[in-house]
Amino acid sequence: MIKNMVGKQTLCFRNQPEILGTGSVVGVKEGKGPLGECFDVVLEEDIYGEKTWEKAETKMLKEAILLSIKKAGKTKEQINAILSGDLLNQLMSASFSARDLQIPFLGLYGACSTMTESMIVGAVLVDGGYADHVVAAASSHYCTAERQFRMPLEHGNQRPPSAHWTVTGSGSVVIGKTDHPYICCTYGTIGKIVDPGITDTNQMGAAMAPAALDTVITHFSDTGRPLDYYDMILTGDLGHIGKDILLDMMKKQGMDLEKVYNDCGVLIYDREQDTHSGGSGCGCSAVTFSGYIFDKLIKGQLKKILLISTGALMTTTSSQQGNSIPGIAHAIAVEIC
Amino acid sequence: MIKNMVGKQTLCFRNQPEILGTGSVVGVKEGKGPLGECFDVVLEEDIYGEKTWEKAETKMLKEAILLSIKKAGKTKEQINAILSGDLLNQLMSASFSARDLQIPFLGLYGACSTMTESMIVGAVLVDGGYADHVVAAASSHYCTAERQFRMPLEHGNQRPPSAHWTVTGSGSVVIGKTDHPYICCTYGTIGKIVDPGITDTNQMGAAMAPAALDTVITHFSDTGRPLDYYDMILTGDLGHIGKDILLDMMKKQGMDLEKVYNDCGVLIYDREQDTHSGGSGCGCSAVTFSGYIFDKLIKGQLKKILLISTGALMTTTSSQQGNSIPGIAHAIAVEIC
Repeated sequence: MIKNMVGKQTLCFRNQPEILGTGSVVGVKEGKGPLGECFDVVLEEDIYGEKTWEKAETKMLKEAILLSIKKAGKTKEQINAILSGDLLNQLMSASFSARDLQIPFLGLYGACSTMTESMIVGAVLVDGGYADHVVAAASSHYCTAERQFRMPLEHGNQRPPSAHWTVTGSGSVVIGKTDHPYICCTYGTIGKIVDPGITDTNQMGAAMAPAALDTVITHFSDTGRPLDYYDMILTGDLGHIGKDILLDMMKKQGMDLEKVYNDCGVLIYDREQDTHSGGSGCGCSAVTFSGYIFDKLIKGQLKKILLISTGALMTTTSSQQGNSIPGIAHAIAVEIC
Repeated sequence: MIKNMVGKQTLCFRNQPEILGTGSVVGVKEGKGPLGECFDVVLEEDIYGEKTWEKAETKMLKEAILLSIKKAGKTKEQINAILSGDLLNQLMSASFSARDLQIPFLGLYGACSTMTESMIVGAVLVDGGYADHVVAAASSHYCTAERQFRMPLEHGNQRPPSAHWTVTGSGSVVIGKTDHPYICCTYGTIGKIVDPGITDTNQMGAAMAPAALDTVITHFSDTGRPLDYYDMILTGDLGHIGKDILLDMMKKQGMDLEKVYNDCGVLIYDREQDTHSGGSGCGCSAVTFSGYIFDKLIKGQLKKILLISTGALMTTTSSQQGNSIPGIAHAIAVEIC
């Protein structure tokens, strides 16, 4: 019997670590999408006045972190640690933004699952009394991700219908505690890696859906919560194809979650924006939570949500060496308490 | 006043999270070095029977993790989470080894500071009652690191005297609790990024030494411990040059730690092994702790040590874009309790 763990994989936050504020900075395309009005900052140009895409992403992440601190009513000096990550090699955006902010830094990498990984570790630090306030953040940028994982944009290569569009966006939350807790992190389920054996890097939804299923099943089993507990269950970036696969797999498990289930990668773009299977990247769930969902929680339009960021743990090297794409999904429950 | 934090950056583990067992797997060169006899497994060939260096590194890390679990007297099923990382893009070795082990996984990246980052987060999970047993691990491989960060080995390029030699090694510890605590984690200091502006990727010791200094000063200031408290203070991979720089900088701060201070990158190779400035890579402090130091703690030859893994948070992209190399250092105090 572990004091603050239920079941096999789910951490229990008994001391009401709260989300005190969020920040979201997105690119031009995300600003034009259905959630455009929910974000704090929509860039006029994705290069954000910098000389390289990577420097633009670093600036976006820094801006999102500073916004979340400001909206939480805190100062930089009150933040004990930044927990953040991105998709770039050696966490370039996360490292360089933390350098500029001069706040102790723990770098995390879970591919597109990074936002919930950061939030879980952040909630542990605050819940356990190891920190007063932490920042949990994640970031991605279409132009940095394309040239690192796929093709330089100048190639103009064609994308198959199952491809995703990496979200240009940085999302950040401040986790802390007050005397009057309102929006709290209650449970965090750490995911196992599930590898369905997919090798096609343009089938990310299919590669990640089984990991999402595993985490959903584990979360409900660990917490003993009924299937209708949450107002909304959101995966990170399964996209249109992965969302359908997950719904099918859940039905086969006797789980009917269609009414409350959606995917950040599906929500963030219109079908007409030509992103094919939808959004991806760790910025996808980061900005959808920080911008869209958190606002609904504040307004009381949502009361209990489960955010499941999903990650495809592949690298260009592993793909070149014929490896399949392992999936992972971490879940965090955020509720009005 | 935060319950389990002292000073500005140091977490306090009050519930005696213990290191129950360690595992270390190293390459041929490391086996021939001064610490060779301390390691559990010394490879006969660095390719470890695999087809690629990356697959060899994955196998090494998996082996080190399994060894640590076995030596802790536990089974795979008793481990609640693996916290690990490596130097490869998208944490390839850490992800693929966690996939094979089917244990919930949190990927961490702190460049060569990853081992202490993993140990700090692992100690938090166990100390705070969020896990019974966790694995904290880190890995690097000379051949995977060279071709990713520098030149393919086939180039045969010449290395300047200030260059480091990436350690081929995987180290793992199991953190848990027993009724009779013996070797415990007591404090963890999360590092801030310090960037001295160095752009030469062959001057890693100089790039990381100021971050190590910052963490040493912060650790002693936060804990209020006297400078002569520890039997041994070990940085991760400053190497010969970085060690000298740190000693100089400490002296300027009025800190005379020469008698107890050393560096894993200095200890792991003989001068005659032609590694120039010494060892580096996150495997360097991981195997030096898991193999050499832990054995000395068990035998009572050391009683109180401070391990400060040091990381250079640079990427090939950031270097190409003219960025300097930010340094970071996380410290963990391990003591016979």
